[in-house]
Amino acid sequence: MRGMSVPAVALAVALAVLAMPVTGPAACATGRIVGAALVDDWAYDTLGELCDRIGQRLAGSPRMAAAIDWAVATLARAGFDSVWTEAVTITRWVRGEEEGQVVAPVAFPLRLTALGTSVGTPAAGLEAEVLAVRDFAELDERAGEAVRRIVLFDEPWEGYGKSVRYRWRGASAAARHGAVACLIRSVTGNSLATPHTGVMSYVDSLPRIPAAAITIEDAGRLHRLCDRGLRPRVQLRLGAHAAGEVTSANVVADLRGRERPQEIVLLGAHLDSWDLGTGAHDDGAGCAIVMGAARLLHELGLRPRRTVRVVLFESEEFGGQGGEAYHEAHAGEIARHVAALESDSGAFAPDGFSVRGDSLAVLRVRELAAPLAHLGAAAVVSGGAGVDVGPIVRAGVPGIGHRTDSGGRYMDYHHSPADTFDKIDPAELARNVAVVAALAFALAEDPQPLPRRSEDPVQ
Amino acid sequence: MRGMSVPAVALAVALAVLAMPVTGPAACATGRIVGAALVDDWAYDTLGELCDRIGQRLAGSPRMAAAIDWAVATLARAGFDSVWTEAVTITRWVRGEEEGQVVAPVAFPLRLTALGTSVGTPAAGLEAEVLAVRDFAELDERAGEAVRRIVLFDEPWEGYGKSVRYRWRGASAAARHGAVACLIRSVTGNSLATPHTGVMSYVDSLPRIPAAAITIEDAGRLHRLCDRGLRPRVQLRLGAHAAGEVTSANVVADLRGRERPQEIVLLGAHLDSWDLGTGAHDDGAGCAIVMGAARLLHELGLRPRRTVRVVLFESEEFGGQGGEAYHEAHAGEIARHVAALESDSGAFAPDGFSVRGDSLAVLRVRELAAPLAHLGAAAVVSGGAGVDVGPIVRAGVPGIGHRTDSGGRYMDYHHSPADTFDKIDPAELARNVAVVAALAFALAEDPQPLPRRSEDPVQ
Repeated sequence: MRGMSVPAVALAVALAVLAMPVTGPAACATGRIVGAALVDDWAYDTLGELCDRIGQRLAGSPRMAAAIDWAVATLARAGFDSVWTEAVTITRWVRGEEEGQVVAPVAFPLRLTALGTSVGTPAAGLEAEVLAVRDFAELDERAGEAVRRIVLFDEPWEGYGKSVRYRWRGASAAARHGAVACLIRSVTGNSLATPHTGVMSYVDSLPRIPAAAITIEDAGRLHRLCDRGLRPRVQLRLGAHAAGEVTSANVVADLRGRERPQEIVLLGAHLDSWDLGTGAHDDGAGCAIVMGAARLLHELGLRPRRTVRVVLFESEEFGGQGGEAYHEAHAGEIARHVAALESDSGAFAPDGFSVRGDSLAVLRVRELAAPLAHLGAAAVVSGGAGVDVGPIVRAGVPGIGHRTDSGGRYMDYHHSPADTFDKIDPAELARNVAVVAALAFALAEDPQPLPRRSEDPVQ
Repeated sequence: MRGMSVPAVALAVALAVLAMPVTGPAACATGRIVGAALVDDWAYDTLGELCDRIGQRLAGSPRMAAAIDWAVATLARAGFDSVWTEAVTITRWVRGEEEGQVVAPVAFPLRLTALGTSVGTPAAGLEAEVLAVRDFAELDERAGEAVRRIVLFDEPWEGYGKSVRYRWRGASAAARHGAVACLIRSVTGNSLATPHTGVMSYVDSLPRIPAAAITIEDAGRLHRLCDRGLRPRVQLRLGAHAAGEVTSANVVADLRGRERPQEIVLLGAHLDSWDLGTGAHDDGAGCAIVMGAARLLHELGLRPRRTVRVVLFESEEFGGQGGEAYHEAHAGEIARHVAALESDSGAFAPDGFSVRGDSLAVLRVRELAAPLAHLGAAAVVSGGAGVDVGPIVRAGVPGIGHRTDSGGRYMDYHHSPADTFDKIDPAELARNVAVVAALAFALAEDPQPLPRRSEDPVQ
C-alpha cells in the first residue's frame, strides 16, 4: 500500500470488509468463461452478418429497422429468456445525394460527406469562393473575408478531442461571420482519400448553413491553393435534410438471474451506425461483444445470481436518444440496476475498464477484473462509461466503460467508409468477449451489489 | 576482395585501369551539390505547383496538355539552355462517368474505378450476379459458373507483382468463360476505402468486357456475401472509352555540356499520371527530382563536360509511348547517350540505384555513388532502369534506376486518390534531388563515358 493516501487506505479497509474474495467457484467460472470465449466464433460470425448482410444502420433509417429485426431474431435464437424492443422517438436525418467540386482555378472533384444533422444546400447547389483557415482564431481574425464564402477549417491533427470541435461547431462559427457553407478537414490523423462524417450542432440564434467534411487530401489542396492566392471556387450540392419524427427502438434481452432476477447488470452497446461504412468497430463490435458475452454464460450454463441484460441502443451517433429513452422507461428501476457496462470502443486489444461511480465501486471492479490481467483487461480506472448508459449512470447506476487500445488505428476508420468487417481481428474480438463476459458474470454473481454513492439520487 | 570470384577480380582490375578516382574537384562538387540541395525548396515548391495547380494529368488529356505547357515554362524559367517538346502519338482513353452498386441481397454503393484501356458498359449499364473467386485457379475450377456473371478476383495481398496480374489480365480470363464484366480487388495491401486504378490489357481473340477495381473493403464484403450463398447482384455503369489518336508530347530540356555537348546524360521521369489523385509520388516526384537536379547544377555554375538532358515523358502509365517516341526520334543518337537515369519510385527515402547494362557500368556507378552513403544512396545493384528509358536502354544506353524506399507505404497511395502532395516529405524529396544531381554531375563529368556492352547494338 506504499504511496496510498490515508483516505485510500480507509477505503481499502472498508472494501476488505465488504468484499468477498474472488476465489473458489467465481474464479473457476472465470477460467471456464475465458477458455470458452477464446475458442468460439459466434461473436465474429454474428458481427459479420450484421456488417455484411445488414450493413450500415443510420439511426431511424430502414436499414436500422432491418438491424433491429435481425437483432431480435438473433438474440431469441441465442437462448435469452426474453427479448423485446422499447420505443425510441427520434428526428430522422436523411443524407440524400451529395456532391462537390472545385471549379476554379482548376477543376477537381471533392470527396465529401455531409455532417449529421446538417441542412442541405438549395436543390441546384451553391457556389462560392473558399476561405481556408487553420482554426477558430484565424477565422475571427479574418472575419471580414468570410462573408458569402465557404469557410474551410483545416487544422492539423492533434487528436480527436481537439479536431472534433470544428465538426461540432464549425458551421455556426462560420455562419456568424456570414459564410454560406462550412467544410471541415475530416476528423482523423490518417487518410487514404477517406472522408469521415459525424454529428454536428447549430447555435439556435445563427443561420443554419450546410456543413460537410472533406478528405485531408482535398482540404490540404484547397488550403494551399488559397495560400497561393488562387482563390478556389467550390460548388456544393447536398441533399441532407431532417425527415420528421420516427419511432425506432432499443433492443433488450434478459438472461434471468438465479437468485435475484430483479437486480440487473446491464451490458450495452449501440446498434445504430454511420452510413458510410458498415459500423464494424463503431459499434457493431460492441453489439457482438455484449451479445456474445451474455450468450456465452447461457451456453456454459452459468446463470448468475442477478439478471444479465443486453441493451442495443438506438441513435448513439445523433446524441444518445436511445439511452435517454431507456432511462425514461426504467426510471423507477434505477436502484435495481447494479451496474451498466457499455462497450463502444471497438474490437481492438482489450485495455481494461473505466468506472464512473463511487470510489469503492472502482476498487471492487478492479478486484473483479484482476483475474483478467493475462488478457490485458485488469486495468481499471476512474472515468466515463459511455453515451448510451450516461442517463442511468447520471441517475446513480455505477457505470463501466469497456476499453480497448487500437494503437491509434481506430481514428483511421472512425465514421468513415473504412469502418468495415475486414478491420476486425477475430482473436481480439474473442478476447473482448472473454473479458466482458467474465466481468459481467462477476458483477452479477457478487454477493454484494457494487457500492453506490450515498448521495446518488435514486428515482 | 575476400569472396570475389576470379571474373569479378578481373573486372575490378580492368575497372581500376579504366576509372579516374572520385576525388579532387569531383568530390568537392558532390559536397557543394548535396549541401545546396538540402537547403533548397525549389523541387518541393515545383511539385506543389504541379500537383495542386495542374493536378491529375491523364495521358493525352487536356490536363496533360496543361502540364506540358507548365513544364516548358518552368524549365525555361529555371535557366536551361534549350527547352522543347517532341510529339508523341497516343490513343487517348477517357474514363467517363462511372458508378456501381450492389442491388441484392442488400443495397450498397461500390467505390470503384475503371481500369485504364477498359471498355465501358452499355450506356444504360449492366447488371449481373457476382462470382467471387480467390485467383485464376479457382476461376478455372468454377468456369461453368462464370457465364453471364461479373467475375470478382479477390486474392489476398502478397505484393504488387502477384496481385497486378488480375488487373492486367483478369478481364480476358473472365471473358474466356463467358463473364460480362470483371472486378478486381484494388492492387494494394492497405485501404481506407480507397480504389486503385492502373492499366489493363485485353487478349485479342476474346470478347472485351469492362473491368474495374473496387476497394479491398467492398471486395471482401462481396466475397463474403457469395460465401454465405447470398448471390449478390451488381449494377455497373462505366463510361470508359477510347477517344482516338491524339498528338501529345515529351518535354525535353538541355543543360549544354562544357566540353562534349554532343554526349548526353539523360535524366527522365514521366509527366503523365493517373486521374484519381494528383500523381504526387507517381511520378510528379520524379519530374521534380530530375528537373530540380539539373537546375541545381545550373544554379551552382557547375556545367559538366557532357550535356545533362531532362526528359519528361508522356504516357508511361499506358505502357510507355513517350519512351518509344523518344527512342524513335533519337535512334541515330543512341551512341551519344552516355547514360539514361529514370526516377519513378516516388520521393521516399533514397535507397540507391539499379543499373541495367555492362557489369563495368554497374561497378563504375557504384564508385560514383559511393560519396552518397550518408544520404542512403550508395547501394548500387544490377537491375531495371524504368519503363520510359526502356527503349533506349534496350538499344544499348546504360540505364540507371533511381530507387527509394517507402517502407511499404508507396503501394498504399499508388494509382489512388491518395497519391497527393500531402504525402510528400520535403526533406526526403530534397535528399533525392541531392543524390540524383550528384550522380548526374559525376556521370556527365567522368572523363570516360560509362562502359557499354561490346555486343550492344548501336544504331
